[in-house]
Amino acid sequence: MRKVYMDHGAGMPLDSKVFEAMKPYFRENYGNPSSSHSFGNVARNAMESAREKVARLVAAEKPQEVIFTSGGTESNNLAMKGAAYRNRKEGNHIITTAIEHISVINICKFLQKEGFKVTYVPVDKQGMVDLEKLEEAINDKTVLISVMYANGEIGTIQPISEIGKLAQENKVIFHVDAVAAAGKVPINVKEENIDLLSLSSNDLYGPKGVGALYIKAGTKIQPIIQGGGQERGLRSGTENIPGIVGMGKAAEIAKKEMEAEGKRLTALRDKLIKGVLDKIDYSFLNGHPTKRLPNNANLRFSYIEGESLILGLDMYGVQVSSGSACTSKTLEPSHVLLAIGLAHEEAHGSLVFTLGKQNLEEDVDYVLEVLPDVVKRLRALSPLTPKEMVR
Amino acid sequence: MRKVYMDHGAGMPLDSKVFEAMKPYFRENYGNPSSSHSFGNVARNAMESAREKVARLVAAEKPQEVIFTSGGTESNNLAMKGAAYRNRKEGNHIITTAIEHISVINICKFLQKEGFKVTYVPVDKQGMVDLEKLEEAINDKTVLISVMYANGEIGTIQPISEIGKLAQENKVIFHVDAVAAAGKVPINVKEENIDLLSLSSNDLYGPKGVGALYIKAGTKIQPIIQGGGQERGLRSGTENIPGIVGMGKAAEIAKKEMEAEGKRLTALRDKLIKGVLDKIDYSFLNGHPTKRLPNNANLRFSYIEGESLILGLDMYGVQVSSGSACTSKTLEPSHVLLAIGLAHEEAHGSLVFTLGKQNLEEDVDYVLEVLPDVVKRLRALSPLTPKEMVR
Repeated sequence: MRKVYMDHGAGMPLDSKVFEAMKPYFRENYGNPSSSHSFGNVARNAMESAREKVARLVAAEKPQEVIFTSGGTESNNLAMKGAAYRNRKEGNHIITTAIEHISVINICKFLQKEGFKVTYVPVDKQGMVDLEKLEEAINDKTVLISVMYANGEIGTIQPISEIGKLAQENKVIFHVDAVAAAGKVPINVKEENIDLLSLSSNDLYGPKGVGALYIKAGTKIQPIIQGGGQERGLRSGTENIPGIVGMGKAAEIAKKEMEAEGKRLTALRDKLIKGVLDKIDYSFLNGHPTKRLPNNANLRFSYIEGESLILGLDMYGVQVSSGSACTSKTLEPSHVLLAIGLAHEEAHGSLVFTLGKQNLEEDVDYVLEVLPDVVKRLRALSPLTPKEMVR
Repeated sequence: MRKVYMDHGAGMPLDSKVFEAMKPYFRENYGNPSSSHSFGNVARNAMESAREKVARLVAAEKPQEVIFTSGGTESNNLAMKGAAYRNRKEGNHIITTAIEHISVINICKFLQKEGFKVTYVPVDKQGMVDLEKLEEAINDKTVLISVMYANGEIGTIQPISEIGKLAQENKVIFHVDAVAAAGKVPINVKEENIDLLSLSSNDLYGPKGVGALYIKAGTKIQPIIQGGGQERGLRSGTENIPGIVGMGKAAEIAKKEMEAEGKRLTALRDKLIKGVLDKIDYSFLNGHPTKRLPNNANLRFSYIEGESLILGLDMYGVQVSSGSACTSKTLEPSHVLLAIGLAHEEAHGSLVFTLGKQNLEEDVDYVLEVLPDVVKRLRALSPLTPKEMVR
């Protein structure tokens, strides 16, 4: 049976070149960058080289504006809590959107308990943030705007430059969760007026357990983890050198391959979307038709549960997701799909395909071959399906 | 030139068996444990097996009492801030010692700014915590006692069982930073009445960037990182499966090899200590002579700067440390050495040897061969050295 993994939003394989780059730091160069001896130097140099590569991926002015964390969730926590607490004297109002990653949503809920006020700006039916409402929400207590670069679930890419301009004009810190977007679409923190940008290594085909936060020089934030003062005092803890080296290499490769791979994936994505919409009745695309991540197709099927579809496809060797893996433990429908106006049952009938480097056109063909049958069978079993559809 | 790495407190090589165990999770089994499909199951099973192994290393009753973090520093932050904030209604008093790891010290300083009161219990000249003073410090506002199992810098092992008993009798949460001790001396969280125990993977010859926190069932703590609710809601963020698998394997190996390796290292350590004290005038052992980590020798040389000793030894291929790598960026003398009553210049003249698996008796012989010369040369250059000593 063909194996087709289209759940890259949940987890990515490590690039073989990244693995090769990491290897020497596991068992040979295992020094601590804080050590004074020559072994420490090796680790320090490797770390600084990785920092430069990550800085280059997002067009940061200086490598020192990048600090390493344990992943995207920690980066979001550091950025948002770090900025909120550090600037509390300036105000206690935060603006975000209704479709942010669950970590941003839960950080906001936490900060609300801590006395912060949060405005959740709505999005339209395609997941685009309402810029007018965002501008209206800014007041003299606003200290932070947090908007994701692109949504990993419905793929929609936000007008980050415009939001950055608004933030700058109003002297509000602008945080961007770029975990789903980085390495897939070009990001330029300077041109887009981004102050804080969260990155995850695994989403660049780098190792898990590593992430980074871009912090524009001069942006005031405070740490969320106290300790030995590593990473300019903003992220204490012994540095994960193999992981950091891996993230650096992954960022370098992503920068180099992004354009060609983006075109290739966009073509596969569009073939998948068109094929599904053509072949399967009552199927719909969630998210924006063109302003979307090259690797994302979020498709909705009336009268079916996404979870049964996942299991049905798994039996054919096809692995996809019913939403964000990060929220799959709850049986609640995706907050993202509800925010774009879907009814509960519509949200539950949605499937996320996230394509990756190893996916070929043959994989898309295979999905287009097996999916209609799986859908048909599940609809036949479902009490929700109108009788005339089951033949 | 012989290469002798005796700075295992700063960084450890990955065990080759650990590396082999991790490998399949980088590029083959890269699923997300939260995913519903079969690929997610593989990740989930691997993670739960690792959890069992870590639980066994510290004799936890249930694997579920172990959660994975990004390292020892994060575990300390989660344990201490998590317990302090969660139990704030019960009281705002914390007890710790003067020789804790810099992360514990800095967490306490942070909590003091947040309105908590902290008592730093003194230690004696050998680094043993003063049990009477600790007991006296407990009052009806005390919510947390945090004492390290053993000090990674001076090697002293604390009377954890006695402190655990005191904590239990007074219904105070007992946190133990076991980063330096785990895998080197047996730990039994149940018998020693430990509620929270911090572990680091790299200190077990596992990968960097992973750690764990043992949380005794029923102990009330709250998360410091918000997000998708992984690790029972206590540590959000996509799980670092290769790292977690590695930590599990490292814990398994540590448990198996601890006794034999402990004996071997103790013999090497004692040979090193005796050799240095015999061969070099005005050299002294810091820390406890017998209640100390099998792999730690902290030696003090009058009239020399530890930093020059490190560089001098580095030229002979010997890598050691002048204190904790985590605090080496500051030029301040080690707070641990000051706390055991050393003067500033004595603290600055101290050297930490932390031995490891690959160190052989020949390595100790080599150090004993080169160190006296390095010391002699540096003393000859030092204006502090009494003239009669320089011949």
